[in-house]
Amino acid sequence: MTGGDVNAVIERAVFNSDGLLPAIIQQHDTLEVLMLGWMDAEALRRTLTEGRVTFWSRSRQEYWRKGDTSGNMQFVRGAALDCDADTILVSVDQVGPACHTGARRCFDVDPLEPALGSPDNE
Amino acid sequence: MTGGDVNAVIERAVFNSDGLLPAIIQQHDTLEVLMLGWMDAEALRRTLTEGRVTFWSRSRQEYWRKGDTSGNMQFVRGAALDCDADTILVSVDQVGPACHTGARRCFDVDPLEPALGSPDNE
Repeated sequence: MTGGDVNAVIERAVFNSDGLLPAIIQQHDTLEVLMLGWMDAEALRRTLTEGRVTFWSRSRQEYWRKGDTSGNMQFVRGAALDCDADTILVSVDQVGPACHTGARRCFDVDPLEPALGSPDNE
Repeated sequence: MTGGDVNAVIERAVFNSDGLLPAIIQQHDTLEVLMLGWMDAEALRRTLTEGRVTFWSRSRQEYWRKGDTSGNMQFVRGAALDCDADTILVSVDQVGPACHTGARRCFDVDPLEPALGSPDNE
């Protein structure tokens, strides 16, 4: 992605009042949803140009290129903004676990048991 | 999910300063990521107990049970909070398109072409 293209994406992306965009991270081949992180304009620019996912850490207030400390890198395989341009879906090749707990997915640690619905009983 | 269970989930869920939680909606069988919506405590309660996904519409400032006007209902098939309890992943059976544009996924309408990364060229 060239500089001009990236600037156009950043310009049409709709960041929230904190200047952030939620980023859904999905494993490209198994299609597992691994985690949700947050990107400001600079994290988005880095993610789209470097081949590695960078987030803005709200708790540490710093850029966080996934894997730099843990080794659990996220290599970019694709990306798309949604219809409102206020969320990004990033397809990745995740090395090791995505979650700081050691789980593969951040959604593996707190499964719920909702009431189930179906077209048949609607 | 019983009332007590739901209250426990709502209690441990971490809502943002607007009282909202991002909800990633994934088709249960194809594993497509369909959309991201927002839930307040009441939308979360309804989603976990009714078998249908309810969001809080930030633009209209009202509850929005997906499909009530469009017919494109989302039937709940599973759910999980993430490791920080500040995001929920909801597995659904989506009737028709998930996106108001008529696209199956909200992420079908604005694909990007990021630079790709790989463990091989790291």
